[in-house]
Amino acid sequence: CIYEHVLEPANLRDLNEPLIDHAEGQLFLTQAFNIIVEEVLCKGTDVKQKVCHEKEERDNKNSCHPRFFNQQFAGVDYHALAGRFLTETLNTNLFTYEVAPVFVLMEMEVLRGLRQLVGWTEGDGIFCPGGSTSNIYAMNLARYQLFPEVKSQGLYGLPRLAIFSSPESHYSVKKGAALLGIGTDNVIMVKVDDGGRMIPEDLDQKIELSKSQGAVPFLVSCTSGTTVQGAFDPLDRIADVCDKHKLWMHVDAAWGGSVLFSKQHRHLMKGADRANSVAWNPHKMLVAGLQCSALLLKDTTNLLKRCHSANATYLFQQDKFYDVNLDIGDKSVQCSRKVDCLKLWLMWKAVGSSGLAERVDKAFVHVRYLVEQMKKRDGFHLLREPEFVNVCFWFIPPSLRGKEGNADYQDRLAKVAPTIKERMMKQGTMMVGYQPLGNKVNFFRVIVFSPLVSQKDLDFFLNEIERLGDDL
Amino acid sequence: CIYEHVLEPANLRDLNEPLIDHAEGQLFLTQAFNIIVEEVLCKGTDVKQKVCHEKEERDNKNSCHPRFFNQQFAGVDYHALAGRFLTETLNTNLFTYEVAPVFVLMEMEVLRGLRQLVGWTEGDGIFCPGGSTSNIYAMNLARYQLFPEVKSQGLYGLPRLAIFSSPESHYSVKKGAALLGIGTDNVIMVKVDDGGRMIPEDLDQKIELSKSQGAVPFLVSCTSGTTVQGAFDPLDRIADVCDKHKLWMHVDAAWGGSVLFSKQHRHLMKGADRANSVAWNPHKMLVAGLQCSALLLKDTTNLLKRCHSANATYLFQQDKFYDVNLDIGDKSVQCSRKVDCLKLWLMWKAVGSSGLAERVDKAFVHVRYLVEQMKKRDGFHLLREPEFVNVCFWFIPPSLRGKEGNADYQDRLAKVAPTIKERMMKQGTMMVGYQPLGNKVNFFRVIVFSPLVSQKDLDFFLNEIERLGDDL
Repeated sequence: CIYEHVLEPANLRDLNEPLIDHAEGQLFLTQAFNIIVEEVLCKGTDVKQKVCHEKEERDNKNSCHPRFFNQQFAGVDYHALAGRFLTETLNTNLFTYEVAPVFVLMEMEVLRGLRQLVGWTEGDGIFCPGGSTSNIYAMNLARYQLFPEVKSQGLYGLPRLAIFSSPESHYSVKKGAALLGIGTDNVIMVKVDDGGRMIPEDLDQKIELSKSQGAVPFLVSCTSGTTVQGAFDPLDRIADVCDKHKLWMHVDAAWGGSVLFSKQHRHLMKGADRANSVAWNPHKMLVAGLQCSALLLKDTTNLLKRCHSANATYLFQQDKFYDVNLDIGDKSVQCSRKVDCLKLWLMWKAVGSSGLAERVDKAFVHVRYLVEQMKKRDGFHLLREPEFVNVCFWFIPPSLRGKEGNADYQDRLAKVAPTIKERMMKQGTMMVGYQPLGNKVNFFRVIVFSPLVSQKDLDFFLNEIERLGDDL
Repeated sequence: CIYEHVLEPANLRDLNEPLIDHAEGQLFLTQAFNIIVEEVLCKGTDVKQKVCHEKEERDNKNSCHPRFFNQQFAGVDYHALAGRFLTETLNTNLFTYEVAPVFVLMEMEVLRGLRQLVGWTEGDGIFCPGGSTSNIYAMNLARYQLFPEVKSQGLYGLPRLAIFSSPESHYSVKKGAALLGIGTDNVIMVKVDDGGRMIPEDLDQKIELSKSQGAVPFLVSCTSGTTVQGAFDPLDRIADVCDKHKLWMHVDAAWGGSVLFSKQHRHLMKGADRANSVAWNPHKMLVAGLQCSALLLKDTTNLLKRCHSANATYLFQQDKFYDVNLDIGDKSVQCSRKVDCLKLWLMWKAVGSSGLAERVDKAFVHVRYLVEQMKKRDGFHLLREPEFVNVCFWFIPPSLRGKEGNADYQDRLAKVAPTIKERMMKQGTMMVGYQPLGNKVNFFRVIVFSPLVSQKDLDFFLNEIERLGDDL
């Protein structure tokens, strides 16, 4: 047992002696800071160091490392990190203006900036603890708008509600349907095209079918930047279908939303301004740091507060001396809520919209380079041309090349990625994910967006996959 | 507008030049760190400085200040803060063992330690982004255990479900009922005694009544440490009622849970081990820092994962080379999830269970001192003897003393607390909250638990209330 579980009678010191010694505490904190800089930020970002240390497990996997291609939280931004340190030290709470006046205003301002990129000059929004929560809030808002009585009376007595999404959408759509009492069976999966994009014609048909079966469609949850393939659903054409059926259109742009900063790539989200809500996680592509997830709303009728409020009199007193509309806490299902805006605000102020656009554009250029190199090498087989910065590919080891016709080909191919992954982790050279998808056996998905990545790291990536897989 | 919204064509530098300059970034971070220590931790904890700066709004309200009595997030712990800096820098994610091996094991270990204090030798649990989320998870688990088909089919076709709680319970019970599609009307309010504690006999009667009206009771959400009065519901007697009716017993101990560290005061939660779930926020009384909220479960049947899982194949691959039960992410409704355990683990290791017990015990001693002093002074009128570290009182200004019989007495008394609050905030001398409750007009609630508080601060508190209110 790691703790002393025998609880000794408290040795209560003098009532005038605080339990915290500031000098000692600040010395400890300074030493900890120096170790963090040395071990995590210097050594951890050095390509000559391992990405992970499997044997010793002496530290965690290092997502700051330039060869961490595993998930959408690679890299480090120092301005954002300074904002996070300040947030942690101030330790305040976004529920009332009283305790967090600057951050209440800052959150409003940052949300306004993000909404402007979506194309909205007004609206509402809130930072949530992650994209799943943002998506779930959108579901709850859509339901409340259609049936406000759900808040007080529940679903009891209402017809069956239906949500439409694609099989390549994030799993939080199903988690949300389960949590909200709607049920995962009532998330209707719309067909996708070869690129993993929702097919609007099939959406229209599925909505009609659902209605004919007595359900009440109320929400289409589309995706800008799907998790595995990085596909962008055709928002404009989906908006037409939503208009036709008067459904709430939600865009899960947790991953892809940051293309809105780029003049060159923002066309991928054309039509986003026609949505009712957009979820966008600056903690992914913009490297703001976990957690930084914005739910943006077109609504100007205070729907968020009406849907979520409980009007607790101990917290949201109406006889305060300032404008109580600045007490934004009742817009949230949470009570205590972390300040997630400061890190983004600081980074945005430091590098500007153009600096953030540059990161997005450079990621696309890196991906183009990586794909060209893959095509020049034997053994790398792309699922398809990437639309975003997810590159999905099989590595075909020499022993399997040209054997596509063999009966055991798919079974053997399915074992390649897990074996290479195990080897790379045990050697600590890099990290990249793999998964099956539909009838496609295990393939790698490399995510290229960290501002720490250079072309050398991409060359290394390809060489390393070959080195680890050539004997398979 | 604060940002440069004209998106310039990206000036894409050489592909081999990362977009982040580590030397420059680390210099910035170090300067930021020094400012944080100087401005927030040195000046901010100095009693000679203001708690808030209303006019200039040059910074936020300072919850580290020893005279911040406003809410349950006062104080600072340097070990926890160092853990938070490390968490922010590592920026990893608790969804898989692959990316956070040490923290997956650490979370399991910390949860085990907390469960042991509840009195459970086995069980399950998870850290959630706040106590509201922990309470809502408990509701969802209780519902799933009774009606597992809700997950796939929703509430459609099920009878009306009913939750039992007290009017003094936290508002998240209602928010959760709304979110889960159960409806706030189906949260049945059980009567409380004079101290704000749920009356088990009334609970039993309300359950019977609800059944007779065709509803299906499934959950009693009781409270250990209510938000306003700090009351502890009688858990042992409530457990008898839950046993009788076979209901899930949840204890919202977000605020009060930390008494479990104290030999002297843990009796307040006697019977907690008979509950099915306990929500406990070490970010409150233990000063671990926002967010640190544990949901603890007695369950050993993997209910948490069965209820919440979506089995995403891109993340939770079953052919990994390690024990995939260590991929704990599917226990959560979130996908990305912050590491909330490190700060608590580090603090716990540093000061031990006895050090945390001492903080709890000292808070009670401070409260006893404060109450004694109030009784010695005219003008301080307690709602009742405090059971915990919330002290609820009216300040009766000289002009109202002895005028209880006057027709406008309550109306005038109701205006006292808001006026004093406005004055203290504009002068920045301290912060304390007020609220009405039931038929009781606005009264102050002072929360005494910060390890930075000394007896001098309590004397100051009383003098300051008198100074600010004596002319009213």
